Amino acid sequence: MSATFGNCLKVTIFGESHSTAIGIIVDGLPAGMEIDEGKIAQAMKRRAPNASVASTKRKEPDVPEVLSGYFKGKATGTPLAAVIRNKDMRSQDYERTMEFMRPGHADYTGFIKYHGANDYRGGGHFSGRLTAPLVFAGSIARQLLERENIHVAARIQSIADIIDEGPYPFERISNAESKAFAAVDPEITARMQDRIREAHREGDSVGGTIECAINGFPAGLGNPFFDSVESRLSHIMFSIPAIKGIEFGKGFELTRMRGSEANDIPILKDGRVLFQTNHNGGIGGGITNGMPVIFRVAVRPTPSIAKEQKTVNIETMQEASLRIHGRHDSCIVPRAVEVVKCAAALVAADLWLEVHNG
Amino acid sequence: MSATFGNCLKVTIFGESHSTAIGIIVDGLPAGMEIDEGKIAQAMKRRAPNASVASTKRKEPDVPEVLSGYFKGKATGTPLAAVIRNKDMRSQDYERTMEFMRPGHADYTGFIKYHGANDYRGGGHFSGRLTAPLVFAGSIARQLLERENIHVAARIQSIADIIDEGPYPFERISNAESKAFAAVDPEITARMQDRIREAHREGDSVGGTIECAINGFPAGLGNPFFDSVESRLSHIMFSIPAIKGIEFGKGFELTRMRGSEANDIPILKDGRVLFQTNHNGGIGGGITNGMPVIFRVAVRPTPSIAKEQKTVNIETMQEASLRIHGRHDSCIVPRAVEVVKCAAALVAADLWLEVHNG
Amino acid sequence: MSATFGNCLKVTIFGESHSTAIGIIVDGLPAGMEIDEGKIAQAMKRRAPNASVASTKRKEPDVPEVLSGYFKGKATGTPLAAVIRNKDMRSQDYERTMEFMRPGHADYTGFIKYHGANDYRGGGHFSGRLTAPLVFAGSIARQLLERENIHVAARIQSIADIIDEGPYPFERISNAESKAFAAVDPEITARMQDRIREAHREGDSVGGTIECAINGFPAGLGNPFFDSVESRLSHIMFSIPAIKGIEFGKGFELTRMRGSEANDIPILKDGRVLFQTNHNGGIGGGITNGMPVIFRVAVRPTPSIAKEQKTVNIETMQEASLRIHGRHDSCIVPRAVEVVKCAAALVAADLWLEVHNG
Amino acid sequence: MSATFGNCLKVTIFGESHSTAIGIIVDGLPAGMEIDEGKIAQAMKRRAPNASVASTKRKEPDVPEVLSGYFKGKATGTPLAAVIRNKDMRSQDYERTMEFMRPGHADYTGFIKYHGANDYRGGGHFSGRLTAPLVFAGSIARQLLERENIHVAARIQSIADIIDEGPYPFERISNAESKAFAAVDPEITARMQDRIREAHREGDSVGGTIECAINGFPAGLGNPFFDSVESRLSHIMFSIPAIKGIEFGKGFELTRMRGSEANDIPILKDGRVLFQTNHNGGIGGGITNGMPVIFRVAVRPTPSIAKEQKTVNIETMQEASLRIHGRHDSCIVPRAVEVVKCAAALVAADLWLEVHNG
Repeated sequence: MSATFGNCLKVTIFGESHSTAIGIIVDGLPAGMEIDEGKIAQAMKRRAPNASVASTKRKEPDVPEVLSGYFKGKATGTPLAAVIRNKDMRSQDYERTMEFMRPGHADYTGFIKYHGANDYRGGGHFSGRLTAPLVFAGSIARQLLERENIHVAARIQSIADIIDEGPYPFERISNAESKAFAAVDPEITARMQDRIREAHREGDSVGGTIECAINGFPAGLGNPFFDSVESRLSHIMFSIPAIKGIEFGKGFELTRMRGSEANDIPILKDGRVLFQTNHNGGIGGGITNGMPVIFRVAVRPTPSIAKEQKTVNIETMQEASLRIHGRHDSCIVPRAVEVVKCAAALVAADLWLEVHNG
Repeated sequence: MSATFGNCLKVTIFGESHSTAIGIIVDGLPAGMEIDEGKIAQAMKRRAPNASVASTKRKEPDVPEVLSGYFKGKATGTPLAAVIRNKDMRSQDYERTMEFMRPGHADYTGFIKYHGANDYRGGGHFSGRLTAPLVFAGSIARQLLERENIHVAARIQSIADIIDEGPYPFERISNAESKAFAAVDPEITARMQDRIREAHREGDSVGGTIECAINGFPAGLGNPFFDSVESRLSHIMFSIPAIKGIEFGKGFELTRMRGSEANDIPILKDGRVLFQTNHNGGIGGGITNGMPVIFRVAVRPTPSIAKEQKTVNIETMQEASLRIHGRHDSCIVPRAVEVVKCAAALVAADLWLEVHNG
Repeated sequence: MSATFGNCLKVTIFGESHSTAIGIIVDGLPAGMEIDEGKIAQAMKRRAPNASVASTKRKEPDVPEVLSGYFKGKATGTPLAAVIRNKDMRSQDYERTMEFMRPGHADYTGFIKYHGANDYRGGGHFSGRLTAPLVFAGSIARQLLERENIHVAARIQSIADIIDEGPYPFERISNAESKAFAAVDPEITARMQDRIREAHREGDSVGGTIECAINGFPAGLGNPFFDSVESRLSHIMFSIPAIKGIEFGKGFELTRMRGSEANDIPILKDGRVLFQTNHNGGIGGGITNGMPVIFRVAVRPTPSIAKEQKTVNIETMQEASLRIHGRHDSCIVPRAVEVVKCAAALVAADLWLEVHNG
Repeated sequence: MSATFGNCLKVTIFGESHSTAIGIIVDGLPAGMEIDEGKIAQAMKRRAPNASVASTKRKEPDVPEVLSGYFKGKATGTPLAAVIRNKDMRSQDYERTMEFMRPGHADYTGFIKYHGANDYRGGGHFSGRLTAPLVFAGSIARQLLERENIHVAARIQSIADIIDEGPYPFERISNAESKAFAAVDPEITARMQDRIREAHREGDSVGGTIECAINGFPAGLGNPFFDSVESRLSHIMFSIPAIKGIEFGKGFELTRMRGSEANDIPILKDGRVLFQTNHNGGIGGGITNGMPVIFRVAVRPTPSIAKEQKTVNIETMQEASLRIHGRHDSCIVPRAVEVVKCAAALVAADLWLEVHNG
């Protein structure tokens, strides 16, 4: 099963793209924690589709209605539930998907797993729309972390072949949040957006990478082995549709370094242990070392493209071809930035609560 | 907490490098499943240090003693426990590590998390030695899978900058298992081993990448969101010390493809749905699609090197320098191949049992 | 934490007595399972307050709105979420409870645990109203079981000192479901109802016991030790407010029997193993033995009574006295019958799915 | 599955009566916690068979060997594993049990669940012997609690029809620990022991009840609904073989009280909230209220009796009769006292750590 995640801060997710509503239960928030609804609204907006760069025209006002666990502006400590009604659905756009397995989507795997009983409209439970409740919950988690001076930031690192390697100091990554397109360098941003427009013009799509950083974590969070910080962060990242890779610190590049280079050397600064470099992304033995936690995820290109594609008709069991209509992003990376940040915040808050409960 | 992992097939791990013993409990094996102890012994041997390419000289006979859950050559269905006694320990080699935080090791994070009460000898619970029980359990999981004609294989894909991109058919990857150095191409193998020897001569170490494939999985295993196949595989992979990255299918390369190229097109073959390509590594929406599950992990260079390194003395809180004696691998990638395979088998068996229980 | 329960069939509950809504997520229903909404409505109605025997006058139409996981009359296999809006709330009735800890309620423990941030209105998350979503989920679980010819039934066994020992054959217990007051014997029923009316007249309340039976379970469900059938059933029973005791089979009476009497003797009937008696309630070593699973729970008297009671004012930290107004049941046993049945069905379906998944 | 239990303090159990060893992994102990091995030995001894009152003559020295997680007299914070070797086994005594299902034992349910692959010797995994590792782990949990001034005590409340209702102050229950037969009143003790001897003489067995109290718990531990204190305590209690009932506070007697009597009235004492009575066993809404947590469990008579019993031969599927040889207790209640205490301590420590972690 798949709907619940977390140790001390548990989330349970539900909904389909065209069901009555989607939503999430957040269990384990500290009682009495103030929640700023304005910040939630901003996070929801950053994830919402916008027309700037070839994004879906489906309107998702996505105003979550809090049903429980919230009283007089504060978390009660009991489960906080929120739902987002599905509106502006054009299910007829998706009727053909019942039979025609859209390439790159979960139509086929969902059909097989659920023996054809799955709600296929708009990808059903597999829809990227399910990331909206994740953002809702994660934006609360971010508020929890900010009270402890722990901050989560993310930036678009690449779109297709246009890469902004960085590195950037945390503040500059963090500042990217205020932009509709959360990349740091304006000139590279323009080239990234060109790539998206090119793909859009050709009825195609592109992917990219997102770099995420957690700043302010104390040393000592996380666990060896099965609950390592990397295990938990990667677990939730691969829950986000379209994520196909993750690396911590220098990641795959570490495999081309010598040990003498890859090892982060402990130093003393103002009586505290820090590290000369942060090649291992702030994590040693699965546990935070006090340096920023840094990781990078790979976002594959949006599977929904306007070009005609070959496929299979699962009813007649014949090969067929398919042209996807409807409203789609030519690149979901810009919207995925908020999802990655919020999912990381859920894990970060969980790690924090594990040693600061009560 | 960190010691237990799995849904239907649960493992619980324990031990330290220099404790009396290390071990594992395997809970959820099908009652009556025959276990071939010879196959376990072979797997243990493949993970064990060997002298061929600059590997540690510590002898780890590593013969697991099965304590329970095993009767008349078969799994009883109740928890199967196995312990491996720690022998040939030279704790004095590690006495200095109490104070001196070895760079790249979990000495510092372990010290902080456990408030100095951790068993620091040889890295304690963080030792790569803990992967021996994982191999024990995983080799049983592989036997379970093989009965269902599901096979797990892995190969060394790169050492430092020497890369054997492949792709190779499953059989060739699988055949690498019989070699002491599990790479496919003999010529590239020689160059990889050169890199390891070079590093060894210089008192340094190198890393690499391992490609792993699961063949024979039916479509429909796994779950959307928090229990996706990628989430579960990455979760256990990042439990293995030294793993710092993972990608499924084409992984990070997908971010440089167009959607029209990245989408795997469903086709019909002998009345079954297959896919023209396998860029997404056999997984769609977190669920297997019937193609081989393929992923690649990044193994960082061994942190223990013979070169002198700077560090911090945690008792005196002064900077210091450190030269690590003792017995270490200049490259753990060759041994890690078996660990990756066995860890993958644990998840694969768990996914299988999730829909074939009872 | 407390909001999620179950292994293969997981429920997550949320809500407060006076929050916007209460609800439940049911994760793990078999894809394609038909759901009869009429049966859910009947179960909700049996739990709902009714005026027949001194029950609360609060109207709880309690029509759950299914938000997800349900498509074309069938479970999709993905999380099924349902909410029940809170209406007809008279929060002003409960305003005084902010300060005055109502004896027998969770006002004080909730205040302490949640540092005063809990929603105190009507008992908040501790309200018996939260059993409505449990009944919703459990009535779906009952439908799942009925397809396998497994049936759950319960009867009022005692109210105060009026006891109908039984035993009754399963059919007679099952038939009690059609009555507003689910006791078997009409004459004893009248005396039980008298006890409730007496208490009501005196502004007081009474409790009782409920006997529950699960019929049709095959032998072999459940587990030794921590997932024994008794462990799981008792776990969920003590989640129901007001339950303070449980016994399986002859329960406490077994402690006064000799072993030769308490042992259920295996016999053969039509080539199958059955047992001569069922003193152990259909469970041996935590696993079903093919006989009906039988248990009995103790329901304490409703804590809300009209009589004046002493208490403490938690704001002023002074002793005080309190008279509870509002609408309350003088005995919740009649309504609790449905809750017990549905909670038992959740565990029973979970046990079943554990060996019949996929 | 069944082998792992707990939230913050997790135990994983393994072993069979006649396997090489039995044991337990304890995960989540606070790093640096000192462990008094002498106290563990005493607890093990209190659970061990002794000849005083018709107990089994099987010698179980039961000296646990700690394999990991323990360094320099302290818990390291990583999993602490302990094994107890099985010695003095007379497997031949049990050979007949392969075919003949011993009444009252789990022979039949184990045979069905594990398709005949279970280790049937001495009851295998279902053996009461598995409570030895529970006592090991629980006695460490008790030490953890004692540092916080939380104490667990238990007494034999009844043997067969001989009942010592009590109530007794906590100190007198606690003092019973020093006796071989942990009852409070010497005169009633003598009569209880007579009942055991009578049963023994007749080749039969008797059961009884055990009262357990946890003293010193602060208010606010535990959770509403699925993780209520009652849910968690009952869960582990029903994991102990032979437990068939549990009640908290006045338990079943509450069902015969009026609400005005059953409600515990909050009072002020030295500026703290206490309660006039403790009918609800120190728990309200699933959460501790600062009064002692009190519960009572029913222990059925030992199923192994010397009398001839009817049964079924599962191989030939014919009815048969059986006389059990070997070494058995005529009453396990005296030894079960320690098990109940230690199991309660595991839950109590888990509840404590839930709000005092880090």
